[in-house]
Amino acid sequence: MYFGVDYYPEQWPRERWETDLQLMKEAGLNLVRVGGFSWSILEPEEGRYDFSWLDEVIKVISSYDLDIVLELPISAPPAWMLHQYPDILPVTSDGRKTGFGAQRHYTVNSRNYRDFCSKTASALAERYGSEESVVGWQLGNETVHLSYGKEDQVAFQSWLERKYETLEKLNEHWGTVFWNQTYSAWEQIHVPAEIPQEDNPSMQLDFNRFWAETHTNFNNKLMRLLREQTDSRQFITHNLVYSGTVQEHREIAEGLDVASFHTYPVLADVTMPRQPAAAARKHDLCRGTKQGKSYWVTEELSGAPSNNRTGYLPRPGHLKLWTYQAIARGAEAVVYFRWRAALRGTEQLCQGILDHDGMPRRKYNELKEMTASLQTFADEYIASDFPAEVGFYHNPENEWAWQIQPQSAQFSYEEEVLRFYEPAHALNIHTDMIQEKDNLSAYKVLIVPVYFLTKPALNEKLKSFAEKGGTIIFTYRTGVKNSDNAVHEKTLPGELASLCGIEIHEYEALPGDGTAQIKGTAGPMKNRSGTGSVWADYIEPAEAEVLAVYEGKWFEDKAAVTKNSFGKGTVYYIGCGLERGLLLPLYEEIFQNAGLETTRLRNKVELVQRETKHTKYLAVLNHNIDKKEEAELPDGKWKDTAGKEKDCKGRITLAPLQSIILKQHKS
Amino acid sequence: MYFGVDYYPEQWPRERWETDLQLMKEAGLNLVRVGGFSWSILEPEEGRYDFSWLDEVIKVISSYDLDIVLELPISAPPAWMLHQYPDILPVTSDGRKTGFGAQRHYTVNSRNYRDFCSKTASALAERYGSEESVVGWQLGNETVHLSYGKEDQVAFQSWLERKYETLEKLNEHWGTVFWNQTYSAWEQIHVPAEIPQEDNPSMQLDFNRFWAETHTNFNNKLMRLLREQTDSRQFITHNLVYSGTVQEHREIAEGLDVASFHTYPVLADVTMPRQPAAAARKHDLCRGTKQGKSYWVTEELSGAPSNNRTGYLPRPGHLKLWTYQAIARGAEAVVYFRWRAALRGTEQLCQGILDHDGMPRRKYNELKEMTASLQTFADEYIASDFPAEVGFYHNPENEWAWQIQPQSAQFSYEEEVLRFYEPAHALNIHTDMIQEKDNLSAYKVLIVPVYFLTKPALNEKLKSFAEKGGTIIFTYRTGVKNSDNAVHEKTLPGELASLCGIEIHEYEALPGDGTAQIKGTAGPMKNRSGTGSVWADYIEPAEAEVLAVYEGKWFEDKAAVTKNSFGKGTVYYIGCGLERGLLLPLYEEIFQNAGLETTRLRNKVELVQRETKHTKYLAVLNHNIDKKEEAELPDGKWKDTAGKEKDCKGRITLAPLQSIILKQHKS
Amino acid sequence: MYFGVDYYPEQWPRERWETDLQLMKEAGLNLVRVGGFSWSILEPEEGRYDFSWLDEVIKVISSYDLDIVLELPISAPPAWMLHQYPDILPVTSDGRKTGFGAQRHYTVNSRNYRDFCSKTASALAERYGSEESVVGWQLGNETVHLSYGKEDQVAFQSWLERKYETLEKLNEHWGTVFWNQTYSAWEQIHVPAEIPQEDNPSMQLDFNRFWAETHTNFNNKLMRLLREQTDSRQFITHNLVYSGTVQEHREIAEGLDVASFHTYPVLADVTMPRQPAAAARKHDLCRGTKQGKSYWVTEELSGAPSNNRTGYLPRPGHLKLWTYQAIARGAEAVVYFRWRAALRGTEQLCQGILDHDGMPRRKYNELKEMTASLQTFADEYIASDFPAEVGFYHNPENEWAWQIQPQSAQFSYEEEVLRFYEPAHALNIHTDMIQEKDNLSAYKVLIVPVYFLTKPALNEKLKSFAEKGGTIIFTYRTGVKNSDNAVHEKTLPGELASLCGIEIHEYEALPGDGTAQIKGTAGPMKNRSGTGSVWADYIEPAEAEVLAVYEGKWFEDKAAVTKNSFGKGTVYYIGCGLERGLLLPLYEEIFQNAGLETTRLRNKVELVQRETKHTKYLAVLNHNIDKKEEAELPDGKWKDTAGKEKDCKGRITLAPLQSIILKQHKS
Repeated sequence: MYFGVDYYPEQWPRERWETDLQLMKEAGLNLVRVGGFSWSILEPEEGRYDFSWLDEVIKVISSYDLDIVLELPISAPPAWMLHQYPDILPVTSDGRKTGFGAQRHYTVNSRNYRDFCSKTASALAERYGSEESVVGWQLGNETVHLSYGKEDQVAFQSWLERKYETLEKLNEHWGTVFWNQTYSAWEQIHVPAEIPQEDNPSMQLDFNRFWAETHTNFNNKLMRLLREQTDSRQFITHNLVYSGTVQEHREIAEGLDVASFHTYPVLADVTMPRQPAAAARKHDLCRGTKQGKSYWVTEELSGAPSNNRTGYLPRPGHLKLWTYQAIARGAEAVVYFRWRAALRGTEQLCQGILDHDGMPRRKYNELKEMTASLQTFADEYIASDFPAEVGFYHNPENEWAWQIQPQSAQFSYEEEVLRFYEPAHALNIHTDMIQEKDNLSAYKVLIVPVYFLTKPALNEKLKSFAEKGGTIIFTYRTGVKNSDNAVHEKTLPGELASLCGIEIHEYEALPGDGTAQIKGTAGPMKNRSGTGSVWADYIEPAEAEVLAVYEGKWFEDKAAVTKNSFGKGTVYYIGCGLERGLLLPLYEEIFQNAGLETTRLRNKVELVQRETKHTKYLAVLNHNIDKKEEAELPDGKWKDTAGKEKDCKGRITLAPLQSIILKQHKS
Repeated sequence: MYFGVDYYPEQWPRERWETDLQLMKEAGLNLVRVGGFSWSILEPEEGRYDFSWLDEVIKVISSYDLDIVLELPISAPPAWMLHQYPDILPVTSDGRKTGFGAQRHYTVNSRNYRDFCSKTASALAERYGSEESVVGWQLGNETVHLSYGKEDQVAFQSWLERKYETLEKLNEHWGTVFWNQTYSAWEQIHVPAEIPQEDNPSMQLDFNRFWAETHTNFNNKLMRLLREQTDSRQFITHNLVYSGTVQEHREIAEGLDVASFHTYPVLADVTMPRQPAAAARKHDLCRGTKQGKSYWVTEELSGAPSNNRTGYLPRPGHLKLWTYQAIARGAEAVVYFRWRAALRGTEQLCQGILDHDGMPRRKYNELKEMTASLQTFADEYIASDFPAEVGFYHNPENEWAWQIQPQSAQFSYEEEVLRFYEPAHALNIHTDMIQEKDNLSAYKVLIVPVYFLTKPALNEKLKSFAEKGGTIIFTYRTGVKNSDNAVHEKTLPGELASLCGIEIHEYEALPGDGTAQIKGTAGPMKNRSGTGSVWADYIEPAEAEVLAVYEGKWFEDKAAVTKNSFGKGTVYYIGCGLERGLLLPLYEEIFQNAGLETTRLRNKVELVQRETKHTKYLAVLNHNIDKKEEAELPDGKWKDTAGKEKDCKGRITLAPLQSIILKQHKS
Repeated sequence: MYFGVDYYPEQWPRERWETDLQLMKEAGLNLVRVGGFSWSILEPEEGRYDFSWLDEVIKVISSYDLDIVLELPISAPPAWMLHQYPDILPVTSDGRKTGFGAQRHYTVNSRNYRDFCSKTASALAERYGSEESVVGWQLGNETVHLSYGKEDQVAFQSWLERKYETLEKLNEHWGTVFWNQTYSAWEQIHVPAEIPQEDNPSMQLDFNRFWAETHTNFNNKLMRLLREQTDSRQFITHNLVYSGTVQEHREIAEGLDVASFHTYPVLADVTMPRQPAAAARKHDLCRGTKQGKSYWVTEELSGAPSNNRTGYLPRPGHLKLWTYQAIARGAEAVVYFRWRAALRGTEQLCQGILDHDGMPRRKYNELKEMTASLQTFADEYIASDFPAEVGFYHNPENEWAWQIQPQSAQFSYEEEVLRFYEPAHALNIHTDMIQEKDNLSAYKVLIVPVYFLTKPALNEKLKSFAEKGGTIIFTYRTGVKNSDNAVHEKTLPGELASLCGIEIHEYEALPGDGTAQIKGTAGPMKNRSGTGSVWADYIEPAEAEVLAVYEGKWFEDKAAVTKNSFGKGTVYYIGCGLERGLLLPLYEEIFQNAGLETTRLRNKVELVQRETKHTKYLAVLNHNIDKKEEAELPDGKWKDTAGKEKDCKGRITLAPLQSIILKQHKS
């Protein structure tokens, strides 16, 4: 498998390159990602290309037998280009044209920008498309930003015209009759901007769709250009982002060979590593992007992150732990950000594997030791199966709808999805990220959290899934919106009401201290009580059984959690942001009833089971920074793949931040 | 009396109208407010009017025998208009032209906008001015926003020229000599905008006056247009706003038949209902706008409010309670916002009497039951007298002066005025909102809180009021400013010093933890102690008696509360934001000394006494959400107007959120 | 010595002037600062000067035998000028041209503005350059603001061209290769502005340098104009600002006769006076600006400060205390802001010695009493020596580098510098503010806090200082940056590593609760423990001795505080924001080892020793507001200069806010 680094030779004198490459080689690395910020070198003035520097870079790297991923340099167009073609500069939502500086100072809706990108991509493909050491291309880097200028508005109007064909249809789908916003000409349509009150949510969702499609189309155009001019041996990827972005990851990745993303368990303004389930979910998302195949980590944190503020310094063991988590959850390659801390420019305080002084030390040694211990079995390991019997729904459009209307001051999409993901992780249940297009028949349980913006196709699939015996977990605010991001006229939970066997007539963002008292009344919740937060759906059971109710004067007869039989299956509805103490035993019983085996893991311990035809693998990861912790191993004797620990069975104790991968021959 | 709803037929298919109107009729409603957001339907392109849709709306509504208030559609000018005449779009205080979207996307200073409004108003008046079922017109909707563009600047300059005639006078009144801001031409004058430091406060106050007058003039112009073309039978109103707005409510309402306003005891970002005195004060304000007559609630909250955040869900009983509070305090009609939650557009998550699914349920049934119980006596009740012996001063200009210079980080105009209003409410004392133009002779006590920006006419009236035996309560920061919003040269409290019998030489926004220790020394405050907050005037008594002093090293000899005899009257001065525990006994003694009867009501219980020649009415309202509470009834036997409770006397107990209106024949 | 006031005769009627001047005279004042905001009066329209008003002002003031400082009126250019030449208006960092209003509404990069200033300065110099009563000129007032407009950008580009000569050099020094920001033409260079991510730190530092130099050059130009046309008897100064400003105080003051500044121990948003060391440090800064000579306070707070919020009301005794602190620490004149509170305009709520009503009261009486008691000895006192054996490093460029990259969310330059200054103050150690140009040989100890942006010249001086036996205290983040504001390639602390005898391989902004546990292991820290905050350098001692270590799992073997012998000297390195409880004993031992005498002063008691050939002076200042406090006097009998207290020796007790200056004849 590939272990690589992000390397910026343009930042270092030619005489240093050999030292760096020698050190990389010795550390067991076999891949280098280069080129992302070198446009001014490759095209120093309009139309004049000069590849001598990149030729030399590639020559030297390959002389050390390292493979290369070439990143197109399009994240940061050169100063000369922006000065000559200021239409490329993006515009903020309050109408301000942003200046040159940092990166991503362009709008994809500028034809000039797109033309420059195409020409440069072609020139690079022509030159390096059959270069032996170039094994792949990266098209875009974290392309997540929007722009609100004149060019963007015109493109939005055209996109809308293609989508709706007539203004009558657009007015109807957007409900412009509300507050008299009926359009009588396409040019009247604005981009969402800072106005005295909120913009139309249907329009806002379409603006996000427009931007996601714009990014996808631009990516596809570059991809086709490269396909035509490069060896089929060379793969193509794109560095994706999975939080709070206007990106349709599956769409953008569809034509790519590899889905890849950056993972930063801490950031400059995140002062402690987030809980392991948060990173696990991101890995699941990237693994699911191409249905479990072809997934890389293109940027794995290697030192303290920093912009003008500096973040948490990863402790000894973190680099290995995060790498193990990545490959255990499906990554086929890990590329570290970055080889060495820059001496100059914006992100100069952000650390790398080497620090500013270029001396190999702790982080380098950790890396070296880790690659050595992985060498013998990594290829077999990453080819093993990741069996999952639980599907977890995530769709960017649903996230956008929540971002447009968060509804509760306490609501955070990331936190609420994590609320309903984490107990599965804590019960040692593997999850796949699913969407409406997926074949769901392999799963026993589907978790469909905060399913606010509904998809008719998914609604149908879920009904059929339950009918055939599957188990589904829904949560508050299910079934509220149709695909126009308008409210369904059906009684809540709308299209899902019969599936859940309930109706909801009253609901609210929880007032006062933001919590409701919940009393369990049946099943796994019997005799348990606790709190719910963020939101309360006051449920009227129809066919469903009540598992928990709200306590309090006015809505105390209302259900908080229900369970319904539908066909051969079972459907749960959780009406509020249920606290973990109640959610964990509920999930446990749901999984067990669905025939899944669960284990209550110790806090911040993560287990991942993989297998090949003949071998079982078990990754055991202690994410606790200051605490040793135990893990219960499945039956049988296990062997440490790194050969450091002796064979073990039963209960083992891990040091703080210890991570091991065990294996066992199937009998 | 009228019970109505805000209805938006444009949002629903024609076939639903009949269902809605039938349901309204059955709920006991007799009025519908329509038309506010239908400009694009009525004038689909410039100059082409098409009233067929509105004809149909009116025909169908009147076929159900419901009366109609027509709202002019001018809050939301159509997309085509703004696209063709972009000068209509408003400009923010940081110079950004805001885009189309939401509502109120216009500046009244645009001649184009005003002309379009006049033409449309005329066309509507011509068509519906003698329509039987149309009983009234609403001219403007919450017209509270400012604009800072070129058109506004030119209008401001002309307004200033009319006001001051010469630049010499303007320079003098504004004190432009400070920081060398002398103007030598009218065109040099800017609008207040975001500049490195604060703008001249005299200029800022004039800018607010200019805007208030601009709104009033525009309203009057439309009013005159309608008067000319409509039956005198049809009344004219305007939906006012009473918090934090640049509106001269009395001026704008002067030519109107009815003053009306919206009341939202909770909002999307107010998670629990505000204390009952807060809503009571707003009702007093609207009742006082036309001196106790012709006051409507045009928007009464009926469900959970929501923008992109959702607020508190009113509990069973709230709708009735708030309606009872409104009519008890003088409202002659109540119109609920809104009939049904919208499926599309910006405010789609805001609830109505019906929710998105259009099914009549709890809220509908509450409404229906309430109108039924009010039917028999409501007309008599709303015609009864609301006797008040205490006047409470409020003038928008004073509020603006405080907004321009809040002086203390703890200061909030709403909260501080409420501080000095609430104890009267808690002592079962009726208050009228008064201004300098009013005849004050009927009152025994005047409360004049945070009287910062003084009015010479009021100063004189207050002196004469006290001389004749009246009682006045002043608070901190009295008498600081003249009508230029400049500081008086006289020793504080300026023109009011002799009236109060004190001087103030030292004062401050309270530092450290923001409180001062207060020790009562005489009268009702003797042997009491507590805290003051927000501000401290360190008072030097001249003729006044000291009731309380500050404790602490440096200013401990200074008075905090004083009492002065002036003529036959008595004048109190409260030098800090006195805590409720001290304010309540002080008010009690003041009222009793002035010959008023007081009752200490239980927490959040409200009593309102009304009467006709032969009958006494008593509204008893328990605003406690989760707590039953007692109320002491005045002498005699009382009968429940709704006929539900049996006759009662003495002490009664109300369920949480229970509201009743009792009556008694005068003997 | 001079005691003066800031007086604005333009705000008051001519007939009041005599009253004011008579009161000033009686209060013992002998100087008036006038003219700063009178440009519209002096030049009512372009090119037409009218000095009759100022003639009269000067005539009347001198008739009372008060001396005059004339402030150039350039802080607030007139409305007519900005209307005719809008290029003068400044532009914010987000590209918004700010409107007229308040003050400082100009950019110095406007040639029009500079020309108007020169002409006006010349005209004033010509007229008053030999005026007897005019003893000095003030050129600029708090000139601290930046502008980001077109004129500024062009000036910045020219400045860069002068500095770097070629784009190759600029690209290299700025490291534009990072994120592909290479410039190929000077016109491509932007000003730092709000962009999606942070701007290049090298560019940002250069932008600050450009602005500081721009202000200095403009000041020098005016200075030369005045020098040519005025008597040499008249001095020239500039009202400087010492916190968070883009000002090179020493550069701007180099050609001036007097350095002066404003001091505000409380402000509208600072609700309690800052600790005495904070003001002491500001006084040290201004005294150091011209190497201990010619330092004035041009604005000393006299009443409660206020913008639209009002701040702390200085207690009786504060005015005297702050004056005593100023003259004890070296001020040769104190001018109070301001004579009387303005009735109109922006800062109308800010108090003066007289309040709005113009009546002399408490503050006036305090002032009068104080000047009387100072009269007899002030001239001798301010001429006495201020002996300091400790130098404290401060360089604006280092402050700017921190502002550009604060690195830790807890970091505040002011607070962190104060952390390392205050213990010296508390140990009764005098400090001088030093820079790399200074002769350091007179000092025994140098404190060089947060020395992030290094200066090669200083590095060399520090080495030689230590070699010869001096003691140096360094702190965390020493030696990180070179003068390009780029990171040094050498292992930390870079050029200072051998001097400190350490290396630093790991470091971080402290995560979690932001503190680290520190355990003392040797010397003064032995057996002490406590916390560090803000930042942690995990130190590897080379030659240095370890005085304290970090506790905690991962970096517990790392040093937190070290001590190194270098030549004949000693060098300390403090790796974190050490808490005061640990810093104080450490400083104590360091000073004592260096041969300095220390005294642990009581909390908020300040002592200042001065001396002439024959006399010792001792200022004893109790900054405690509510608490009397003791002070230990040095040996011998002391006499109160004000003649109020009897002779004293040993321990004396001061009332809250009491301040006295004692003297003793040298034997």
